[in-house]
Amino acid sequence: MSRVTVKKRILRVKDAARVRKVDALAAEEPLEIRLNGTPLTVTMRTPGDDFDLAAGFLVSEGAVGSPGDISTIRYCAGATVEGQNTYNVLDVRLAPGVPEPEPRNFYTTSSCGVCGKASLEAVRTVARWSAGDDPVELAQSTVAALPDRLRAAQRVFDRTGGLHAAGLFTADGEPLCVREDVGRHNAVDKLLGWALREGRLPLRGTVLMVSGRASFELVQKAVMGGIPVLAAVSAPSSLAVELAADEGLTLIGFLRGNSMNVYTGERRLSARTSVTSGAGNGSADARSPR
Amino acid sequence: MSRVTVKKRILRVKDAARVRKVDALAAEEPLEIRLNGTPLTVTMRTPGDDFDLAAGFLVSEGAVGSPGDISTIRYCAGATVEGQNTYNVLDVRLAPGVPEPEPRNFYTTSSCGVCGKASLEAVRTVARWSAGDDPVELAQSTVAALPDRLRAAQRVFDRTGGLHAAGLFTADGEPLCVREDVGRHNAVDKLLGWALREGRLPLRGTVLMVSGRASFELVQKAVMGGIPVLAAVSAPSSLAVELAADEGLTLIGFLRGNSMNVYTGERRLSARTSVTSGAGNGSADARSPR
Repeated sequence: MSRVTVKKRILRVKDAARVRKVDALAAEEPLEIRLNGTPLTVTMRTPGDDFDLAAGFLVSEGAVGSPGDISTIRYCAGATVEGQNTYNVLDVRLAPGVPEPEPRNFYTTSSCGVCGKASLEAVRTVARWSAGDDPVELAQSTVAALPDRLRAAQRVFDRTGGLHAAGLFTADGEPLCVREDVGRHNAVDKLLGWALREGRLPLRGTVLMVSGRASFELVQKAVMGGIPVLAAVSAPSSLAVELAADEGLTLIGFLRGNSMNVYTGERRLSARTSVTSGAGNGSADARSPR
Repeated sequence: MSRVTVKKRILRVKDAARVRKVDALAAEEPLEIRLNGTPLTVTMRTPGDDFDLAAGFLVSEGAVGSPGDISTIRYCAGATVEGQNTYNVLDVRLAPGVPEPEPRNFYTTSSCGVCGKASLEAVRTVARWSAGDDPVELAQSTVAALPDRLRAAQRVFDRTGGLHAAGLFTADGEPLCVREDVGRHNAVDKLLGWALREGRLPLRGTVLMVSGRASFELVQKAVMGGIPVLAAVSAPSSLAVELAADEGLTLIGFLRGNSMNVYTGERRLSARTSVTSGAGNGSADARSPR
């Protein structure tokens, strides 16, 4: 069960203090579920109870309803990386006479999660540009102000409490575009579509700020948009951090008041300005001099 | 833009007080994206900026990178319910010479969102049982205690802050099974898989408690598991409430302390016990006499 959490070295920033520490992250890994030997779905999950996850997925799809409907579940011995079983591919065999769910029940999609992306490699092959070499720098006070600015730009949240928000900001913290949606991935896609239409791709020199957590999927979308910095109110997953590191993105989490965790790419967080503007009470209205 | 929020009549419960009011919910509706006339994906989204959503989805997939890559985007005139355009199906035409994304990039899936479920009807056709007639009743104090009990049973959250939790409880608030995952849908599927394996389906007389919000997808999973009551810490979407009403589920949101919003199925929330045990300070340790 050690795979349920993954330890990463991070930079903890609070006001003028910067401390290196080791943080535990929720593990996120792809699980491919095969049905009678045929790939059925890929879901990004926290390892553990994988057989229950596969069985429950089939319950949700209406494919099975009693224990006898499933003959066996096993990890695929052939699914290895460098000879090691990844335990990220499993095969469910239905009992004789139990019909497979009709294919029309499964739309082809990758709108949610990273369905279709069984490994990190797939992201790299489709990205048209790299944000890894983007030299943009952000003042700590600018980053600290993003959550309040995102909240201020949200139109619906205060009425429903039910929407995720994603905001695209300049390196100075000026909002370029803010979108809300019940699905966080949709809110980010709406931003990317706006940027495409405006001819702004790749989005060099920008920051993507999201409500809630940072999953692998959101880092992937930032990569696809050429966005060099992703900041989230809550925790990133292990795979989000790994992808951000691989792609040279700056990933910031637990961004609250004037404190934040920097998981990757700390070179883009300017200490210089933070010392002059970030030593106060963490208020979100401070703008750094440029 | 009126479709961004949907007004619903709810029952607001706090301690011994019960007030009927109208609440604004975040709208959630399926959007089918077609590419050059062929269905590509269905995502559950909040209506608005749909063209940007479709374009951004294709950016995320690496299919387009500049404004000229897309020829047209339009709502499909033929996608109607009772003669009215639903504005829930749109078609993207790529510019001549822009290749369609390879099919292998899109796994068949419905693990996240309700990919494959373009309408509420699809859920009803696959459910093996109905929880609508489940006569179970819960004391208000029992419901109020669920968030703390879910939290107490979580193993990883306190270390990472990054996991969703789903807990299955008896009508007395006793935990049957608790699962955590980076994906809320996975946590619920893990519960359903456990229940299948234990031969407990349908899960009559139980309550599903989830961290965060209640989407259409989670109500769907409760329906598929035969669970009559779904309670969430945060807001439900409009479609979650509509499906719960159609299926006869009890849906509770904003469950915090001894206050909650009851969106559907209030008959299962017992006023009798709440008057005797719920008039205090909203502490979560009160257990109702049976």
